[in-house]
Amino acid sequence: MGQASRPARVKREQYPFTITGIHTLRHGTAVGAGSEFGPRAASIEEFLDSARADIAVELTTLNPVDGEPAISHIRAAFARRMHVVTANKGPIAHAYAALRNAAVLAGVHFRFESAVMDGTPVFNIWRHTMPGVRVLGFTGVLNSTSKVVVETMERGGTFEEGLAAARAMGITEADGAFDVEGWDSAAKTAALANVLMDAEVTPQQVSTRGITRMTPERLREMNDQGKTVRLVSRGRRTPGGVSLRVRAEVLPRQDLLACTPGSSNLLLFHTDLMGTFGTVSIEPGVEQTAYGVFSDLVSCLPKM
Amino acid sequence: MGQASRPARVKREQYPFTITGIHTLRHGTAVGAGSEFGPRAASIEEFLDSARADIAVELTTLNPVDGEPAISHIRAAFARRMHVVTANKGPIAHAYAALRNAAVLAGVHFRFESAVMDGTPVFNIWRHTMPGVRVLGFTGVLNSTSKVVVETMERGGTFEEGLAAARAMGITEADGAFDVEGWDSAAKTAALANVLMDAEVTPQQVSTRGITRMTPERLREMNDQGKTVRLVSRGRRTPGGVSLRVRAEVLPRQDLLACTPGSSNLLLFHTDLMGTFGTVSIEPGVEQTAYGVFSDLVSCLPKM
Repeated sequence: MGQASRPARVKREQYPFTITGIHTLRHGTAVGAGSEFGPRAASIEEFLDSARADIAVELTTLNPVDGEPAISHIRAAFARRMHVVTANKGPIAHAYAALRNAAVLAGVHFRFESAVMDGTPVFNIWRHTMPGVRVLGFTGVLNSTSKVVVETMERGGTFEEGLAAARAMGITEADGAFDVEGWDSAAKTAALANVLMDAEVTPQQVSTRGITRMTPERLREMNDQGKTVRLVSRGRRTPGGVSLRVRAEVLPRQDLLACTPGSSNLLLFHTDLMGTFGTVSIEPGVEQTAYGVFSDLVSCLPKM
Repeated sequence: MGQASRPARVKREQYPFTITGIHTLRHGTAVGAGSEFGPRAASIEEFLDSARADIAVELTTLNPVDGEPAISHIRAAFARRMHVVTANKGPIAHAYAALRNAAVLAGVHFRFESAVMDGTPVFNIWRHTMPGVRVLGFTGVLNSTSKVVVETMERGGTFEEGLAAARAMGITEADGAFDVEGWDSAAKTAALANVLMDAEVTPQQVSTRGITRMTPERLREMNDQGKTVRLVSRGRRTPGGVSLRVRAEVLPRQDLLACTPGSSNLLLFHTDLMGTFGTVSIEPGVEQTAYGVFSDLVSCLPKM
């Protein structure tokens, strides 16, 4: 990660967390403040028992199918009465209600602000600032890769060139299909619905169609008509339960959902008492994701 | 106000506040839960002494020149050890630091979420969710009237027709000049700078130019070039202090600042650790302002 920036160093002094252990797939395991990586611990349980932390931070790569192994990691931490902070949307999208209940039973905190929109306040807005308001639905433009692909095709490039451009920007998962087929958006949609609307769904229950059927010809045709395409996540309460879908929607160029620059994301909440309002993140990167984890860590501290 | 909507009634049962008195310029004064309006109390002090509330809610009309009489009302409430909630940006724009200090001395809360963006979380985001982050600046499109005037002229109408349209929508102050000359935006800019950047400024210190020099011809010319105009509030820290300005800025039609629909507002925060993120309110009305006051009331309650 190189040298920390000056503000980051100042903040570290203000919030003196100690890292008691790091457990990774590639680099092995380190236990004890400031120690080097050694051989990998035999299991997550062995690692957690030796690291003896107050807070476990779960940052494994998203498994879109079932949210594992992150869910098991989190359960193992709860079993040891550790608070858990995660930036991984998988556990929230697949098992939020069960994990929230397990945290309550263990008497610990469970925080995941970076799971959607990289540290921009989403879940914390609802945790702290909206007393008495019920979320009736939401509308979000939450996937950056699909947008880069659309914009590449509008400029005359191919689908594959768009995916390569997104990969070069560092915003695409190892498997870009996950983004353009809509599964990244479906996981975020399920996570939002589980936390804000008690939906108890999995990403598989989100009606999902990606942008894979878009062609450069079709996009340039729409462009000539002042229109574009965005992968839009929508959730709403219906008499039959929470309805969730991800679609490549055709939008006027001046639609708020179409106007976020670059890799920016936008999320609108539809509510009973507060009408529609929302949150926007401009060109977020790994620093913002890291900040979300940091703010979650701070929220696990005893109140002063 | 007519019949309360169903969700509003349910919420009233969940949050049983009692109104102990109402003091108005036009309708006189009522003291005691459920009592009728009678003659106006002789002074704000007399009213506050008779109403004996835990929380005073200040909702007088904004005086852009000096923030009075709201500032005196708030001081009178603090002197009686009442918490204060206000939706009035005047006191925040003109005297925030002094009022905040007075509240601390009196051991009471001072809340004003609706002063900017009508109940959409702005100040509460910073009160509750961004530990360790410093606001370096902000960019906002915060005045709806000027936007309606611009859009009217783009469609071929006159400046005056635009003002009349905004007045018909109920979004314009009694004196529309206050909006189009930029003073409403300047007051919001000063309020944001005072609270989020410790600026200790007044609206008079914001470099302000409104949209009054715009003509229908100029706007249609820009429209043909894919551009439009928005009244933009900007604040940033400089080595010489906080720099604040309000300008009619020429923007591409697809700029995020130009894309908010109707009377919607958008505010972006520029920060040290969290890059740029922001908040948006879609077509807010008096219900949203009222919600901001309500959420402020809830935040004055003892923590359960």
